[in-house]
Amino acid sequence: MLVFAQFGAGRIGAIHAANLAASGTARLAHVVDVNAAAATALAGRHGARVSDTAAALADPAVGAVIIASSTDTHADLIIAAARAGKAIFCEKPIDLSLARVDQALDAVRAAGVPMLVGFNRRFDPNFAELHRRIGAGAIGVVEQVVITSRDPGPPPLDYIKVSGGMFRDMTIHDFDMARWMLGEEPIEVFATGAALVDPAIAAAGDIDSAMVLLRCASGRMAHINNSRRAAYGYDQRVEVHGSLGRLIAGNRVATTVEQADATTVGTDKPMPFFLERYADAYRIELAAFIDAVANRTPMPVGARDGRQALVLAEAALRSLHENRPVRIA
Amino acid sequence: MLVFAQFGAGRIGAIHAANLAASGTARLAHVVDVNAAAATALAGRHGARVSDTAAALADPAVGAVIIASSTDTHADLIIAAARAGKAIFCEKPIDLSLARVDQALDAVRAAGVPMLVGFNRRFDPNFAELHRRIGAGAIGVVEQVVITSRDPGPPPLDYIKVSGGMFRDMTIHDFDMARWMLGEEPIEVFATGAALVDPAIAAAGDIDSAMVLLRCASGRMAHINNSRRAAYGYDQRVEVHGSLGRLIAGNRVATTVEQADATTVGTDKPMPFFLERYADAYRIELAAFIDAVANRTPMPVGARDGRQALVLAEAALRSLHENRPVRIA
Amino acid sequence: MLVFAQFGAGRIGAIHAANLAASGTARLAHVVDVNAAAATALAGRHGARVSDTAAALADPAVGAVIIASSTDTHADLIIAAARAGKAIFCEKPIDLSLARVDQALDAVRAAGVPMLVGFNRRFDPNFAELHRRIGAGAIGVVEQVVITSRDPGPPPLDYIKVSGGMFRDMTIHDFDMARWMLGEEPIEVFATGAALVDPAIAAAGDIDSAMVLLRCASGRMAHINNSRRAAYGYDQRVEVHGSLGRLIAGNRVATTVEQADATTVGTDKPMPFFLERYADAYRIELAAFIDAVANRTPMPVGARDGRQALVLAEAALRSLHENRPVRIA
Amino acid sequence: MLVFAQFGAGRIGAIHAANLAASGTARLAHVVDVNAAAATALAGRHGARVSDTAAALADPAVGAVIIASSTDTHADLIIAAARAGKAIFCEKPIDLSLARVDQALDAVRAAGVPMLVGFNRRFDPNFAELHRRIGAGAIGVVEQVVITSRDPGPPPLDYIKVSGGMFRDMTIHDFDMARWMLGEEPIEVFATGAALVDPAIAAAGDIDSAMVLLRCASGRMAHINNSRRAAYGYDQRVEVHGSLGRLIAGNRVATTVEQADATTVGTDKPMPFFLERYADAYRIELAAFIDAVANRTPMPVGARDGRQALVLAEAALRSLHENRPVRIA
Repeated sequence: MLVFAQFGAGRIGAIHAANLAASGTARLAHVVDVNAAAATALAGRHGARVSDTAAALADPAVGAVIIASSTDTHADLIIAAARAGKAIFCEKPIDLSLARVDQALDAVRAAGVPMLVGFNRRFDPNFAELHRRIGAGAIGVVEQVVITSRDPGPPPLDYIKVSGGMFRDMTIHDFDMARWMLGEEPIEVFATGAALVDPAIAAAGDIDSAMVLLRCASGRMAHINNSRRAAYGYDQRVEVHGSLGRLIAGNRVATTVEQADATTVGTDKPMPFFLERYADAYRIELAAFIDAVANRTPMPVGARDGRQALVLAEAALRSLHENRPVRIA
Repeated sequence: MLVFAQFGAGRIGAIHAANLAASGTARLAHVVDVNAAAATALAGRHGARVSDTAAALADPAVGAVIIASSTDTHADLIIAAARAGKAIFCEKPIDLSLARVDQALDAVRAAGVPMLVGFNRRFDPNFAELHRRIGAGAIGVVEQVVITSRDPGPPPLDYIKVSGGMFRDMTIHDFDMARWMLGEEPIEVFATGAALVDPAIAAAGDIDSAMVLLRCASGRMAHINNSRRAAYGYDQRVEVHGSLGRLIAGNRVATTVEQADATTVGTDKPMPFFLERYADAYRIELAAFIDAVANRTPMPVGARDGRQALVLAEAALRSLHENRPVRIA
Repeated sequence: MLVFAQFGAGRIGAIHAANLAASGTARLAHVVDVNAAAATALAGRHGARVSDTAAALADPAVGAVIIASSTDTHADLIIAAARAGKAIFCEKPIDLSLARVDQALDAVRAAGVPMLVGFNRRFDPNFAELHRRIGAGAIGVVEQVVITSRDPGPPPLDYIKVSGGMFRDMTIHDFDMARWMLGEEPIEVFATGAALVDPAIAAAGDIDSAMVLLRCASGRMAHINNSRRAAYGYDQRVEVHGSLGRLIAGNRVATTVEQADATTVGTDKPMPFFLERYADAYRIELAAFIDAVANRTPMPVGARDGRQALVLAEAALRSLHENRPVRIA
Repeated sequence: MLVFAQFGAGRIGAIHAANLAASGTARLAHVVDVNAAAATALAGRHGARVSDTAAALADPAVGAVIIASSTDTHADLIIAAARAGKAIFCEKPIDLSLARVDQALDAVRAAGVPMLVGFNRRFDPNFAELHRRIGAGAIGVVEQVVITSRDPGPPPLDYIKVSGGMFRDMTIHDFDMARWMLGEEPIEVFATGAALVDPAIAAAGDIDSAMVLLRCASGRMAHINNSRRAAYGYDQRVEVHGSLGRLIAGNRVATTVEQADATTVGTDKPMPFFLERYADAYRIELAAFIDAVANRTPMPVGARDGRQALVLAEAALRSLHENRPVRIA
């Protein structure tokens, strides 16, 4: 039974802690959060104790950490956890600065600890099955990938201001998905974007609507379309075209009820947001981490995946600002 | 925190025990099963102890029982649990004999204990939402109900021989669903059936394929079609027609992946069987029971519902044998 | 180029005349209708002349007739056309009386002329493809058939009064479809019905809502559900279950547009009524008739099919009145 | 009744001639084609006579021309027809050279004749309904457009060599669709492409796979993905996102048959190619042309639309070659 210390007792931290408690293969021992009330509540719910970082990492019983605190704390916590020899589950992004990411990854490499970066969508049963079929040859050689990723509504402006911008905050998931589905590293990014949803987002120096093209050396290509607003819910779809056919993974719905009346034939809207849509993914993701630690097998999403998605996000940001395709180093 | 004794440590018992453990609002104290190994394993998994019926029911801490043992034990356990003043969650059917059902229900009534009969499909989010919309007036006045209920494959012949026949064993769920969706008691049943899947089922005196019509006093009507075999999975659909439109609740699938290739555009088959399709339903059902006990509110599926479904099953059986519509007393 | 005389210049007559004109393989020479204005208009539109029955049938150039006049004229026209040696395309039903049907069929048999009965749904590309796949073994041995057939709204009461009742007028199409899909003659019918849509229909001695069960000697069975009202359009679906799987042919829609908004994810309603839904079927049906006449091949829907559907309709009516299953002679 | 001369008796010419014959509002008088056999066959089928260009245009009875000959003849024929005062229906593209297009359009403008450019997809009932709903405000303000346009297989290499390249030959339809759906002129194009389907296409200097981004002054944006190969049929979809929701127009299928078996739940593949998918569109397009000529109303797709799509295609080609976004003059 793997013993965890968890950093961060907010919304996403609560999900991981609950999945950990239900896993049957792990136990939460320490909760660390600058918000003492949140830490106490979460620790109490799962029979853990409130600690500070040093105490949590000094506990020799602790084999692994979950880093679900604010992004600006991730790199330091990774470095400290790596030095303490703990296995690391870190929410995305590792950091908003590539230099800091590399410092963190150096520490992980030096310590030889396993690390998983929380690209939860890889564990969504729909996307995972789509990817499995690509590997099984169902559509032959991959040629084009189209990713639709649209939030139901924009986050608070205060969040946007510290988010690192749409590409680092939101599209980063899609960059990871594109890399995974393409099966080949993009070598060039072109991005366009605008604030079509809310002018306050433009005033904050960010965009809320974007379209991106990625190109690989072999000629494979991917498209991402993003919006911070979708009136009908959280729109998360992946479409992959290959030499032998097409695979699409669509949205999930709460129920299969179809209503036909004088107006329309209507079905459920997509699930409202990530907590609902990716509930299974979060559970499967943590189980995969625990399993990989226990069996000393490779992490399904490694540190390098976290870094490369950020590289693409930074290139997209430069492309947007300079209005030109940007080469990936 | 409601304390439970559970009778039956088989497949369905394991589901209820796991849901109970994960509920956060209840605790399993006793497991009773003639199969000592099964009882020990299940009790061990959830921190309960292995008991016999008398000890379990004598425990004053126990507030509720789950009866998930073989059908022929249900009535006696209901009577004993009722006399011990325990709230009762009983798997369907209450008994294969209406006389025995009435004895059990008399005991429940006399003791004044709450009882839920395990018609799990009422808690399926799809059927529940369909039913909610009927109540909300989405399709006006209900006129016709069509229920499709087809198992992936027949159970072992040994099970069929003691099952009470297809109508009491399998269609009983559909009779309950029909009553629920019609919103009115059927007054007449006509049934036809045959053994089209396996002649051994005919040799055992049972059928494996059936079509049923139900008629209400108002003229509302319902159709049920059943088969013990569906090559594509577990087919569970409900369609309700009303004066203002139509509601359909279809099958659930494991993933939304759609594959288009030179052959077809294919999607997932329906989930394989009840464990997968009704996993949510079982969880919600138990939570509803715990909630109704805790808040002393009426049970969402009561003892009378269990009885009436059996009344319809018996009438269908008589209709099949006598080839005539049978009036419900 | 086959030369036609057409009896009936009403709504359905206009469809056949237009399809005939567009066929490129036939020509309309005579139009006969008690309504002189309608006859003149239709004849004018297609370069035909207005005739009376005797003149039309006496024309040696005429090789075939289309009988699309009112039902009570069908039998006499069939007999006259048969005696004149013309190939016969007759709208359903042949007649409301089985005795009259048999007289007409005797005349057809005696004359040795080919005859097609207008069960247009057999030529619907969706149902035809479903049927083709049954024949190709796609779902193994047929076991159960479920037919949904619901009109958008009831016809005028005056029509209902002379229609022969819902089973002879509307369900007759579904009886034909059931026979075709079952691939075996039903030996027994059980029917239930009510006037749920409009009490005036009950006052006129008819029903507007029905459910029917059909049983074959092999144990195969079929269900039909009917309503004279569907708020969402014309609902025409067929579902066939076999030992290896299931085939469904659903409704057609005008466009594939899907609209997702804050309310729902909505698609087009089914096409409004038979003129739209079966436009292709009418065209293909006439072409099949012309082709069978030209090539002296068997008619795809013969005189006996017209008779047997009426036999089932009469049995259903007796079943409804006597509330018992009725054996097919 | 509008009298036509038609230039071109090939595959697309045959479609227009047949639609013209069936329209009931127009008549084909002259067929002109360098292939005398094709001209004779088509003229014979529709009661027209074989002519040369001069004779056809000199006929004062002729009110309109259909130009469906090879692309390199379009501009000259437009100029000649305009000078002869005929209404012009011209297949896309007007010409592969923008200079030639402008010469042709100058002639049209000088003559004051009406001209429709054959962007058939605007008349597809699915795309037309989607566009109508945008106009009706169903999804609020348009923000993003995603166009999927994939051919079942590449054309012969000889055709590719004279086609002007994929952007001018195939994507030109999508550029028109993007302009139409955006409701605003794109000001910048970025395109990427590769020959992933067949290296011989690369050897011929062309691509067979492409992704394009279009940007408008308001910030609205569009994406197009193309391939010369789709194993599952002709893939033609449009998706438009607005402030209030999303509209999708999907592929059409030949039948609604769904087959569920041990392998999958499969539906029809998209219709095979443009002849099937756009059969309705071609018919409606010609009727719209005839109607606009007869009523002297504006053409639904005008000469400028033909020009602007080519402008976007040329910009895309430059973008591909220079690997940079290209501004629209």
